[in-house]
Amino acid sequence: MPRTRLDTGRILAARQLIDPVFLDTPFYRCEALEPRLGCAVNIKLETANPVRSFKGRGTEVVASLLADAGRRAVVCASAGNLGQALAWSGRTRGVDVTVVASRSATTAKLDRIRALGATLELVDGDHESARERAASLARNAGIRLLEDSLDLETCEGAATIGWELVNSRLPFDTVVLALGGGALATGVGHVLKELAPHVEVVCVQALGAPALAHSWRRRRVVTTASTDTIADGVAGRFPIPAVLEDLLLVADDVVLVREESIVAGMRLLLHHAGLVVEPSAALGLAAVIEDRDRFAGRSVATVVCGSNVDMAAHRRWTGGAQAREC
Amino acid sequence: MPRTRLDTGRILAARQLIDPVFLDTPFYRCEALEPRLGCAVNIKLETANPVRSFKGRGTEVVASLLADAGRRAVVCASAGNLGQALAWSGRTRGVDVTVVASRSATTAKLDRIRALGATLELVDGDHESARERAASLARNAGIRLLEDSLDLETCEGAATIGWELVNSRLPFDTVVLALGGGALATGVGHVLKELAPHVEVVCVQALGAPALAHSWRRRRVVTTASTDTIADGVAGRFPIPAVLEDLLLVADDVVLVREESIVAGMRLLLHHAGLVVEPSAALGLAAVIEDRDRFAGRSVATVVCGSNVDMAAHRRWTGGAQAREC
Repeated sequence: MPRTRLDTGRILAARQLIDPVFLDTPFYRCEALEPRLGCAVNIKLETANPVRSFKGRGTEVVASLLADAGRRAVVCASAGNLGQALAWSGRTRGVDVTVVASRSATTAKLDRIRALGATLELVDGDHESARERAASLARNAGIRLLEDSLDLETCEGAATIGWELVNSRLPFDTVVLALGGGALATGVGHVLKELAPHVEVVCVQALGAPALAHSWRRRRVVTTASTDTIADGVAGRFPIPAVLEDLLLVADDVVLVREESIVAGMRLLLHHAGLVVEPSAALGLAAVIEDRDRFAGRSVATVVCGSNVDMAAHRRWTGGAQAREC
Repeated sequence: MPRTRLDTGRILAARQLIDPVFLDTPFYRCEALEPRLGCAVNIKLETANPVRSFKGRGTEVVASLLADAGRRAVVCASAGNLGQALAWSGRTRGVDVTVVASRSATTAKLDRIRALGATLELVDGDHESARERAASLARNAGIRLLEDSLDLETCEGAATIGWELVNSRLPFDTVVLALGGGALATGVGHVLKELAPHVEVVCVQALGAPALAHSWRRRRVVTTASTDTIADGVAGRFPIPAVLEDLLLVADDVVLVREESIVAGMRLLLHHAGLVVEPSAALGLAAVIEDRDRFAGRSVATVVCGSNVDMAAHRRWTGGAQAREC
């Protein structure tokens, strides 16, 4: 049993705080993908909800606890999905939400944050600049800073996915998880290691944003000077030490994948599963694509964690000659 | 309370026979669609399952009852979704499935029927020719003929969607339903009229395949000589009298929509909800698009009933100049 910062009792309690629209999401085998991948593929779909990503599970817990405590404001940095989810959860509970994002974040995500009534502040630089600015805003205004993956609500909210996987009737022996800040990976990983320890937990980052993968391998925080990936949802440079500690306890492996594999994963999901996904959500399949031998004959579960993508880019990535062959 | 052929007690019992992978599907408000439609839009998503349509709900009931009765074979005519679902349900219960389809049916659907191990027979002509051939096969072989919309399992299976809508926490005052053979419309309609009679039930057919709509308006069966629509899943010519009787009891209105509205609906669902849908699944939104005034300010629920579509055609329909404006 891993001694992470997470607690399975609290994870079960979190389910009571989360709007049911985010819970008990589809989990189904997608056989049409399998001839291309050489293993059984089971999809946990986190996109069929009002914010089109799994982040609502965590923000529901945060906003619920804030409202109960009479706190009326919160700020976060976000590549887009956390901000959108926090805007949704805050709006229903009368909590003012400020989101700080990089000017270069995905337009579709920024538009939705604004539409949901949050205050959106754009900064130059990347997601790490947004994190700094959000922290400074929170300090100056004396309001709650929500830090993705560091704050336990985000991890334990995401962990409810793990609980649903463990309680499904679908058998699987491997789970492949997108690894960004670490909330999804440590959350789902914690539950699996505690309740289904036979399942191998494989986390996946883009080669163009490998800081947490490198950190996991060297068992110490490694930062990078820049990121270069289309997987905007997982492109961090400064891993959080406490999250790395948890990841070391729950991940059996952390692998890195190429951009073309991420695109190939998106293409497969579109053409053989009928799913529009954002690049981060294709990381799991990308890992299988890059190492079919490793996964051959296994039953893999992957979390399709978001579908907030600029459609023009998605169309570019998934069309063309390769699409006809995929 | 409508005196249809359906029974709410049996509908609840049907839920016990259906693999949970087809039940309790996502139902969520999709605000990003709303500025384009002028009403609240709530999506009941029936595509995130192993056969990518709602038809599994009915075929699970059929295959379950057949297996219990020791019957090992069944044949059906299908435009593709029923056949795929029956193939899936039969396979898990050792029931041999034969599907008869038109040679011009959607390739993606036919491929999946074969992949699921069913015997597929293709006939010249349209869906009505397939229905004739399936009936003759069943007679000659002495096996069960499953007739979509006529056989109560298909209606009562689909009706479980209605039960889930009624038991959700999301408020809605109008439901717009694709109308093909009538199983979905009479199933969901029956439950709504019995348990939520304040909800207006609007059924939608394509102008190019209007037989059941015309029949509903004239209160007698009207057939057509041909069909001409991209909505392959709802393109029948010979309405079933018993189904028409039920439809007369549960539908408040039946409207007809143009092909360009169906395409506009698919485009909106792709670009603003991130959903790939087959043409039939866009009929509900097409009805709103054609009569915004009628639905203005309402809260509409629509069943996204399938996503089995040839992706090249989908790409053609949803791309181009209009997509950038939608």
